[in-house]
Amino acid sequence: MYLARREYQVDVFERYSDLRRLDAPGHRASISMTLCQRGLQVLGDIGVEEAIRLLAVPVYGRRVHMTTGLGPFQPYGNRDEALYNISRNELNRALLLHAACFPNIRFHYDEKCIDVDLATTTISLQNMQTGVITRHHSDLLFAADGAYSVVRRYMQRLDRFNYSQRYLDYGYRELTIPVTAMGEPAFDRNELHLWPRGHYLLLGFANRDDSITVSLFLPFAGALSFASLQTPEDVRQLFAQSFPDTLAHMPWLEEEYFARSANSLVTIQCSPWVYRDRVALIGDAAHGIVPYYGQGANAGFEDCFILDCCLDRHGNNWQSVFADYEMLRKPNTDLIGDLAAQHFTELCDRVNDSRFLLRKQIERKVNQLYPNVYIPIYSMIAFSSRPYTQAMEIERRQSVVIDRLMALDQIEERWNSAEVEQIIHELIQEFLSDHCYEETVSLV
Amino acid sequence: MYLARREYQVDVFERYSDLRRLDAPGHRASISMTLCQRGLQVLGDIGVEEAIRLLAVPVYGRRVHMTTGLGPFQPYGNRDEALYNISRNELNRALLLHAACFPNIRFHYDEKCIDVDLATTTISLQNMQTGVITRHHSDLLFAADGAYSVVRRYMQRLDRFNYSQRYLDYGYRELTIPVTAMGEPAFDRNELHLWPRGHYLLLGFANRDDSITVSLFLPFAGALSFASLQTPEDVRQLFAQSFPDTLAHMPWLEEEYFARSANSLVTIQCSPWVYRDRVALIGDAAHGIVPYYGQGANAGFEDCFILDCCLDRHGNNWQSVFADYEMLRKPNTDLIGDLAAQHFTELCDRVNDSRFLLRKQIERKVNQLYPNVYIPIYSMIAFSSRPYTQAMEIERRQSVVIDRLMALDQIEERWNSAEVEQIIHELIQEFLSDHCYEETVSLV
Repeated sequence: MYLARREYQVDVFERYSDLRRLDAPGHRASISMTLCQRGLQVLGDIGVEEAIRLLAVPVYGRRVHMTTGLGPFQPYGNRDEALYNISRNELNRALLLHAACFPNIRFHYDEKCIDVDLATTTISLQNMQTGVITRHHSDLLFAADGAYSVVRRYMQRLDRFNYSQRYLDYGYRELTIPVTAMGEPAFDRNELHLWPRGHYLLLGFANRDDSITVSLFLPFAGALSFASLQTPEDVRQLFAQSFPDTLAHMPWLEEEYFARSANSLVTIQCSPWVYRDRVALIGDAAHGIVPYYGQGANAGFEDCFILDCCLDRHGNNWQSVFADYEMLRKPNTDLIGDLAAQHFTELCDRVNDSRFLLRKQIERKVNQLYPNVYIPIYSMIAFSSRPYTQAMEIERRQSVVIDRLMALDQIEERWNSAEVEQIIHELIQEFLSDHCYEETVSLV
Repeated sequence: MYLARREYQVDVFERYSDLRRLDAPGHRASISMTLCQRGLQVLGDIGVEEAIRLLAVPVYGRRVHMTTGLGPFQPYGNRDEALYNISRNELNRALLLHAACFPNIRFHYDEKCIDVDLATTTISLQNMQTGVITRHHSDLLFAADGAYSVVRRYMQRLDRFNYSQRYLDYGYRELTIPVTAMGEPAFDRNELHLWPRGHYLLLGFANRDDSITVSLFLPFAGALSFASLQTPEDVRQLFAQSFPDTLAHMPWLEEEYFARSANSLVTIQCSPWVYRDRVALIGDAAHGIVPYYGQGANAGFEDCFILDCCLDRHGNNWQSVFADYEMLRKPNTDLIGDLAAQHFTELCDRVNDSRFLLRKQIERKVNQLYPNVYIPIYSMIAFSSRPYTQAMEIERRQSVVIDRLMALDQIEERWNSAEVEQIIHELIQEFLSDHCYEETVSLV
């Protein structure tokens, strides 16, 4: 759409059928994804944000389920920030409907890319219905073909292409908590539900129909793992012991568990993203990340926005556009890839580590006192459009304040006292005088 | 040979022709490689060390060439340790001659692997002379097919295969300094010759015929780079300015420069190395590293030794043999891969950083005073068979001693004084009481 707006003729080749058809076959089971400020701003920029917001369920904070009962609600920041949970298929359908309004975008469905000639930007496509193979040449080729990108595989054959794929030892299985007999969601629909258990995790988001999709994160191998859960009884026992409040709401637990396979989790990084002034990787094809920070789709949409900014700068000098695009984006997507992989540990340990929880409470307190100065890293990532690397740099500086508070004697008892509040004021004044604090946000 | 010694029937498939034939075509130009203690010990274990030592040129230390003249000779350690420079083809020829003595090793030359079926350990081979394709099944498959391993490419298609290939921005071109008109080597044949120039480097080893092979390390792109050297004059000017003492000895400099292409430098890491109890990656196929530490071949030979140790432990339970092999080896080869990539900077900066040189001098002094306690990391890597990870752990602890010496006031002037020597004694006593120092070396 960004390209069509600039009056380029755009051809979109899609391996699966037209999602707008109700009977469209072959698509992946519809998984949940989360949109946040970063992604929504880009969708707003192309005029489709409101349509998509209507399809999404806002989530205003986290709720930890302990084996002994519900923990307190932990709101995201102090400003009604929300994540928006949406079905992948519904998001794509809305985007397709919007894109169809551009006369210079042509869609080609059921076309699987089977060969790429980078030097001539020619791709070979096989029709999944008819088997017919056709070739398509274009001046520019954007590879938005996902974490297992075919185009990237051809770029890998070039000399000095850097590439890494790193899998977590963990995987996940998606399961469903249907609406209750009363037609209501089993748990609050506007909360992210977390069952953190140290080395494993259950995580749930409500869908538009009030069912809840939960993801069970487990190691692939080991004492308690996908490999160790062999029988329906094993699965039921795990849920009874570890997630007791879900069991009454999951009538099909065992059937569903064994009907679905465990998905693996990969982080993909590579460079260069671009080939001369002809080919560019974009979205997951350029940077596959794990879902723990909810940033995958958002980072992909942001790629489009940044690429459009580079077009503003360099006109149709595509060599410069591409070089700038990679230079601006890659450090940011490398960072979110690393952060996302680390964040799993944080999600898992959320109930078990009292120092960690104290740190979060103190962070929230400092943020309440100085909402424009001290913003937790999670909020900068999810609820701002600040570049990821800039967010991380600010976090590196500001975390010194929290380190010093955590080092105070008996901080466990005193953290909410007037006395400590006075120390917070002093530390923040010091912080502000040390750093010429940049309030402005610049995306590129 | 390790396998043949255990009476396995071994089939070796080699893409190129039999190197023992004088006219064997298709082999890579013979590059130099270095053997050290680690590799020689393994060669000794299979009874071929002496034969190979005779083909190698021992190098007892480094000689830095500055633009103003020769620097002092820097011996490796204090114990006559040496690196052994050998031509890759001569090394391989000697190994082939030795292997031919085993009746249960069969060689298949000119056979290129074009397909691998991991599940049935069946490989398809195309004969490079006749074009005929054959299939070969075996119970076990060892992929010793190098950094661009075909077998590994098939393993990469399995789920959750971790893989990374990282290229340096630098490459190298090999050039020759022939023997002088007097029939002598242009520079001392038993020294590693270094022309470190901060951002680039020339490095030379003498060959058996007293010619010297030098490698020019330059960035691929930038102000001074392989891309910037366009004409014979550019090349001559670089050598005249940066490596003036070589110029008189390089009559074919420009022709040779443009006749050879620049080689890229890649670090490859992956996991798993093994597939069930059937397939194992070994050598560069499992861990491609850059040549700066001279450890590539040594690490590959060590793989064989460790695999043999695992066979001692687990008999022919190959599932356990392979699991143990990967567990013992991978942390070590990951480490040497990282160290080798970093070592380039150390080689380049060797003349420019006076603090760095002082640190090396102090290290040497401490090593002279305590030759069995303080051993520089380079010596532990090159002149011992200590596992790489263990060497690094010891370095982490012992470097504190040098850090504290470097922090002394006016250490630049005082480092060789009796006073500082007294401090060294105290620090080492402290170090010895802090760490229960392990003198024993255990390989596995």
